[in-house]
Amino acid sequence: MTVRGAAGPSPRAPYGGSRAASQTLPEWLGRRAYLTPEAVALIFGDERWSFRELDHAVDHTAARLWQEGIQPGDHVALLGQNSVEYILALGALMRLGAVAVPLNTRLSPEEIAWQINDSDAAALVVDDEHLALAGKALESSTSGAGPIAPKVPLIPLEAVASPRPPGEAAPSYPRRSRIELDSLHGIIYTSGTTGRPKGAMLTYGNHWWNAIGSGLNLGGHRDDVWLAAVPLFHVSGLSIVMRSLIHGFAVLLHQRFDPALANRAIDQQGVTLASVVSVMLSRMLQERGGRKYPPHLRAVLVGGGPVPEALLRRALDLGMPVLQTYGMTETASQAATLPPHDALRKLGSAGKPLFPVELKVDAPPGEVGEILVRGPGVSPGYYRRPEESKASRREEWFRTGDLGWLDAEGYLYVVDRRSDLIISGGENVYPAEVERVLESHPAVLEAGVAGKADEQWGQVPIAFVVPKSSPSHELAAELIAYCRSKMARYKAPVEVHFVPALPRNAAGKLARHRLRELLTGDDGRA
Amino acid sequence: MTVRGAAGPSPRAPYGGSRAASQTLPEWLGRRAYLTPEAVALIFGDERWSFRELDHAVDHTAARLWQEGIQPGDHVALLGQNSVEYILALGALMRLGAVAVPLNTRLSPEEIAWQINDSDAAALVVDDEHLALAGKALESSTSGAGPIAPKVPLIPLEAVASPRPPGEAAPSYPRRSRIELDSLHGIIYTSGTTGRPKGAMLTYGNHWWNAIGSGLNLGGHRDDVWLAAVPLFHVSGLSIVMRSLIHGFAVLLHQRFDPALANRAIDQQGVTLASVVSVMLSRMLQERGGRKYPPHLRAVLVGGGPVPEALLRRALDLGMPVLQTYGMTETASQAATLPPHDALRKLGSAGKPLFPVELKVDAPPGEVGEILVRGPGVSPGYYRRPEESKASRREEWFRTGDLGWLDAEGYLYVVDRRSDLIISGGENVYPAEVERVLESHPAVLEAGVAGKADEQWGQVPIAFVVPKSSPSHELAAELIAYCRSKMARYKAPVEVHFVPALPRNAAGKLARHRLRELLTGDDGRA
Repeated sequence: MTVRGAAGPSPRAPYGGSRAASQTLPEWLGRRAYLTPEAVALIFGDERWSFRELDHAVDHTAARLWQEGIQPGDHVALLGQNSVEYILALGALMRLGAVAVPLNTRLSPEEIAWQINDSDAAALVVDDEHLALAGKALESSTSGAGPIAPKVPLIPLEAVASPRPPGEAAPSYPRRSRIELDSLHGIIYTSGTTGRPKGAMLTYGNHWWNAIGSGLNLGGHRDDVWLAAVPLFHVSGLSIVMRSLIHGFAVLLHQRFDPALANRAIDQQGVTLASVVSVMLSRMLQERGGRKYPPHLRAVLVGGGPVPEALLRRALDLGMPVLQTYGMTETASQAATLPPHDALRKLGSAGKPLFPVELKVDAPPGEVGEILVRGPGVSPGYYRRPEESKASRREEWFRTGDLGWLDAEGYLYVVDRRSDLIISGGENVYPAEVERVLESHPAVLEAGVAGKADEQWGQVPIAFVVPKSSPSHELAAELIAYCRSKMARYKAPVEVHFVPALPRNAAGKLARHRLRELLTGDDGRA
Repeated sequence: MTVRGAAGPSPRAPYGGSRAASQTLPEWLGRRAYLTPEAVALIFGDERWSFRELDHAVDHTAARLWQEGIQPGDHVALLGQNSVEYILALGALMRLGAVAVPLNTRLSPEEIAWQINDSDAAALVVDDEHLALAGKALESSTSGAGPIAPKVPLIPLEAVASPRPPGEAAPSYPRRSRIELDSLHGIIYTSGTTGRPKGAMLTYGNHWWNAIGSGLNLGGHRDDVWLAAVPLFHVSGLSIVMRSLIHGFAVLLHQRFDPALANRAIDQQGVTLASVVSVMLSRMLQERGGRKYPPHLRAVLVGGGPVPEALLRRALDLGMPVLQTYGMTETASQAATLPPHDALRKLGSAGKPLFPVELKVDAPPGEVGEILVRGPGVSPGYYRRPEESKASRREEWFRTGDLGWLDAEGYLYVVDRRSDLIISGGENVYPAEVERVLESHPAVLEAGVAGKADEQWGQVPIAFVVPKSSPSHELAAELIAYCRSKMARYKAPVEVHFVPALPRNAAGKLARHRLRELLTGDDGRA
């Protein structure tokens, strides 16, 4: 398989000396279908798929994608909500040796167009629900202001992926039977510090080692069922599917998160493991109303940003074994997780790094500093972003930009996510990206964006704007609407504050940490 | 670290394309002591060691070995029975970056001297029990007929390894904090087809991938305790220790196998996993007298040669979840293991390959052929044996020499171990090695050795000898005694049959499979 875009660091020539040439393994789904064909691979609604059935359906999906012109090495964008078909498409891309580019369904058409272009996608596979959005994205050049529309074919997901294909063998296609761990599995976009998202490259090895590290921490039970109510287009959801193929447990997939359904799945469908973000946990406990969780629930991983300790304690009180985790797209999900036996003793800590991961804090012992990570789970870099890839490293260590400290026993406490990162309901929002959109509005001279604490979402973005002419409540509302039309809704500011000037440091650089000092009684909330 | 003996294939330049440069991981025991310091690592008699305590004692042992002159890269022979000290020495060699050469304690002094020479060992670490044997080995040149005595220092194990060292930090030594998976962990001698044992090189990666594959098959429970009553100088015992460092379970170590103690450990010490060979299983069931095994016993792996189906059935009847395995030194123990859910349905099968292992049979589907194995668990070759290393490969596949077939679902049935291999009580005996010794006796013209079924040991070696002069019962007894003086007792023939000529094929090569046809009423048993 080839990696497009010679400008980016190749996953075959990664950073540092710790990972060089590649280990080859049998292709994971095929292996699972051989080793444990009748084990439950996937539960969705009332239906169950065994690894044998999943393998068969993936074979048909891969053959259809091949008929649609998808070649080994192609980058293929995926736009869809959680579904069996989405998992079939992921499996088919793996089996074809094509590279998955999962897109956030909450992106604006322009953002989608931009990511398709940036990732050199050869096609866009899209589910029924998002056909209109995809259509707009592919036409977005006609609006004039947007990026050039990508010239890629649109492939309807339901037309290539059928969970119950005919019993006969799939038509022939170049089926990959082995996987080199250094080969590229996918490109996942993360909000960018410079105003544009960056495509984090993840190799099969990144997923493999993450799955192994997670398993060494949590153990593996024969009847494990992992609840995936987080999106499959995020590394949090994607990594559950990867772990399932490696460990052979069942994924219980929810189309979207619903606290009552999540709680019911735990009670009635044997869920032993689950991945959530803080806001999901909060809503599940609220819906629960004090009823205890069953003892078969082994661990609930809470990731995607800081979790209030009171919330963790409330969960533990209900018998839910919550484990705070620390990770990001670039570490293929968890880099550190509180071990189950420390859930109570080390409340508030994100635990210790997974077995293959090394983690250090760039500060004297016990003091706060930048968190650095290295190991085989770390992304080889950003697609076509040699500068940003290089800037994210110090020798072979990945610089997370997050702040934290290690206690005397080596437990990690995350103090602050990447200096200016806003985490809203588990989604990352980089202020620079929102500022860029605000400043594209004709009435805006300059803009600064910061996070504001929010009971429901953890944080929400708010904007500070220096207007070109006199400010008004109407303009504030218009700017919010403008942002919502240009980008995913969760990125748009919920408040716009007009200010005469933005705080800047001596070098003239925006001092975002001082933005909130500008807040006055008049909050310009739309 | 360096690998001595440029004549042999380097573990850094292995066979085939599937394994090239190296992945680096944190040193395993240090990592365990960091991740789960208080978890039980080792149980021996009434005593328990946590990973923290083991780590500390290993540090002191490594410092002492360093003081004794052991350098990173040195090959260090280990001669001892199962003990805490033995495990400390293994850990200390890992931490120093030295290479372990575990010696079978049942070898003759000459065999020990030969393996020390062949492995380029820089020292011999030996326990109290085997000081006399080691002394004889190091003096064996003076007997005239033996090999040149190795000029290596003898280091008493108990003088360097103390399970309860002082509380303070160990003196400084070049402590290795990370491990390259392609670096050499040890050299383990296996009986040779050509009359001399061969040193199978095993890398850290071989052990890592074996441990991961084993875990993906058996799962991992927080309270796992693995009974190790097999010798640590065999890959079967050694690999339990390796898996413990990686998975973090407790090893319950027995000095030597005792069926009553093994049964009691299962009943009273929470053993969930165990490794045995056929003769051990048989003796445990005999001692058991029909009493059921407790449900916490998750799996008993039965390896080291064929297991009678009646024995497996008897074990299952008593509630013991026996799982037949197939593996060898060159595959770092298990290559295939029956999955737990198939224990009953596929009785007699050695199951399917571990997740990272590929296995095929060199024959049409369903027919018997040679078993070939490839994957990251396979040894890179034999130390200083380029020819034999090469002969053991076909492209990147390792030729086991064993015969077997795969059923329609892909389950392996082993029909016959390497054509002429005799497996006696789990120990491998190669006829060529015994024949070489017999033919060194002045009264022997030529000799052929074959296996004979034995109720207790599975098989025992018997010899067919063409004498130079007239045969006698006295000569038979003398030849048996002669063999016992020259080699491990289990290798010496239990019967000597005098024959006028040995069966040979057209090319004059000994036809061992026809030896047993020579048996007459007069059996020459000594």
